[in-house]
Amino acid sequence: MTKLISHEIDIVKSETSKINAVDFDNLTFGRTFTDHMFICDYENGAWQTPRIIPYQPMTMDPSARVFHYGQAVFEGMKAYKDADGKVWMFRPEDNFNRINKSSARLAMPEFPKEYFFKGLTTLLQMDSDWVKPGKGNSLYVRPFIIATDPAISASPSNNYRFMIICSPAKAYYTDKIKVLVAEKFSRSANGGVGFAKAAGNYAAQFYPTSLAQKRGFQQIIWTDADTHEKLEEAGTMNVFFRINDKLVTAPVSDRILDGVTRKSIIQLAQDNGIEVEVRPITVTELKNAAKAGSLKEIFGTGTAAVISPISAFEHAEELFELPNIDNSYADTLKDTMLNIQHNLTEDKHGWRYGV
Amino acid sequence: MTKLISHEIDIVKSETSKINAVDFDNLTFGRTFTDHMFICDYENGAWQTPRIIPYQPMTMDPSARVFHYGQAVFEGMKAYKDADGKVWMFRPEDNFNRINKSSARLAMPEFPKEYFFKGLTTLLQMDSDWVKPGKGNSLYVRPFIIATDPAISASPSNNYRFMIICSPAKAYYTDKIKVLVAEKFSRSANGGVGFAKAAGNYAAQFYPTSLAQKRGFQQIIWTDADTHEKLEEAGTMNVFFRINDKLVTAPVSDRILDGVTRKSIIQLAQDNGIEVEVRPITVTELKNAAKAGSLKEIFGTGTAAVISPISAFEHAEELFELPNIDNSYADTLKDTMLNIQHNLTEDKHGWRYGV
Ligand SMILES: Cc1ncc(COP(=O)(O)O)c(C=O)c1O
Ligand SMILES: Cc1ncc(COP(=O)(O)O)c(C=O)c1O
Repeated sequence: MTKLISHEIDIVKSETSKINAVDFDNLTFGRTFTDHMFICDYENGAWQTPRIIPYQPMTMDPSARVFHYGQAVFEGMKAYKDADGKVWMFRPEDNFNRINKSSARLAMPEFPKEYFFKGLTTLLQMDSDWVKPGKGNSLYVRPFIIATDPAISASPSNNYRFMIICSPAKAYYTDKIKVLVAEKFSRSANGGVGFAKAAGNYAAQFYPTSLAQKRGFQQIIWTDADTHEKLEEAGTMNVFFRINDKLVTAPVSDRILDGVTRKSIIQLAQDNGIEVEVRPITVTELKNAAKAGSLKEIFGTGTAAVISPISAFEHAEELFELPNIDNSYADTLKDTMLNIQHNLTEDKHGWRYGV
Repeated sequence: MTKLISHEIDIVKSETSKINAVDFDNLTFGRTFTDHMFICDYENGAWQTPRIIPYQPMTMDPSARVFHYGQAVFEGMKAYKDADGKVWMFRPEDNFNRINKSSARLAMPEFPKEYFFKGLTTLLQMDSDWVKPGKGNSLYVRPFIIATDPAISASPSNNYRFMIICSPAKAYYTDKIKVLVAEKFSRSANGGVGFAKAAGNYAAQFYPTSLAQKRGFQQIIWTDADTHEKLEEAGTMNVFFRINDKLVTAPVSDRILDGVTRKSIIQLAQDNGIEVEVRPITVTELKNAAKAGSLKEIFGTGTAAVISPISAFEHAEELFELPNIDNSYADTLKDTMLNIQHNLTEDKHGWRYGV
């Protein structure tokens, strides 16, 4: 190991790379990690000197508060490589802002912007060989913060660890998916933490989702906990409904994550002359539209898959299958997004961020 | 370190004890741990051979699912030592059943009963010097399970770790506390995970609680997320209201933890001829009772403090202070509980569990 001290980040470079052992054509999402990781600890009321070190296990006390009280937030974004070998990210400032919003809701300290971007770019430069060119290929970037204080009293931690780890990725979902509309279980409460990328929100979805999966549905579309009438979002995706030629998506709230892909898709749809309505949409409206034939498409949006077309939904034991259509909005919008992300087209909104 | 193999638990005994360095009169809750801990890993679809080893930090991969998706559940119970030096627990079977209920809701595997009780009793026998006699003293016992799989896909982990760690404790809350009734934030949703001792439920309460604390309230009494009218529970306590000579407490539901102390207090109150109503109770009823002078007491119940008397509550910027009363139910019932827990009285319900 070589120890280089940059004037802002302490860097220990890995002496060898694991990259040659990786089969980039057969990646399981989230199981392979790059050579380095970024770490910054919060102690004595301040974020300490950040470090980049070889990716490795770390030591935690069994009483660390993250294990007991779930003080943990994360982000998910991607890096892309263009034909010239340059690495790009997509709207990372939104992820930066969101992780701090998530942290605030869980009583965790704000992470400094300079550290976030300096850490991100330095890490991606060091591990840039792991970002493979070609549409669909990307390096998934996972910033996260966990409470490390070794004390099991139910109160906010004094110490935290911010980290960034990276995992090479191909498309997340491959086929069209079928979804179940939630009737009993729910994902979040008014006044709760649904809008935050809080770790506990995800574990809470696994059991209901596993029941859905046993019945042949890949995901659940969550509804509001009071009435189970308002359509909200899916596990790690916001949801859009195309009714005739209009796109409808639920407004964000304290129950719904403000997705970066969601707002980009709204913008790109509008750029393409597609009308978008951001308003509550109910299960009843959806079923009526499906019956009337005006429901043309449903798709999820999220960093992992960009857009995930949905071929069918079930509610109250009634299954609704969507027709296959040519020139789907899902396909067009996904392509437009990928072209921006991979630097294949003009970026008129200034979303690309060169690493 | 001596390695002894029992036929059921692999034991590595600590060569020295840290106990002499501990000031048992000045303990901060949850910061000091005993000499040993119990570990059992779930791998390849089965719980592996359990181990007891010296309390120590452990190695975790940064991608371990607990850090990202909050798959983590826990329990809290106490061990007491009587005048003869015998160690007792209080209704541990309820905690065992509850951790498996919590696990099931988070799509985590059930932990075997034999391992739980064998682990618990062996650990407490080895660390029995840490259980100090005397009413109010106890050893807080924290079983917990975390997802250890090193993979950041949003789905249930394949691997888990069950642990028990123990921390000597004096009374958790000392003074009477003031509470704020929730009007905007909420703790859990219908169809959510509020009834589970899921790690994420606790982090979600820290920020609203910190706002309350800045205004001089120690805890929040949560209300239902739909109407904020139904009184539910506090951070780590169920809540009882004494109206005239009757005790009222909310029924458990999928939003409320089924507290072991709660159900024991209901039973003991009935044993003492106190009428208990388990029914929804609203903020309006509470405020009216306070104004009419029929609200005599409010108290929280939980393993940490047994009973925590509440001296005042605030709602909609109106503060209600409760009168001091003689022969409070809180004092009587707490004393009855402590006497059972510390083996100072008959245990007619068979709640004590000898270690
Ligand atoms: C609950 C939830 N909804 C929606 C999304 C989509 O957000 P984004 O487009 O920022 O990835 C995510 C994140 O991936 C999510 O976790
Ligand atoms: C949310 C919540 N409510 C109530 C309680 C009280 O439960 P018990 O009496 O079993 O300790 C606890 C646990 O301590 C809790 O975490």
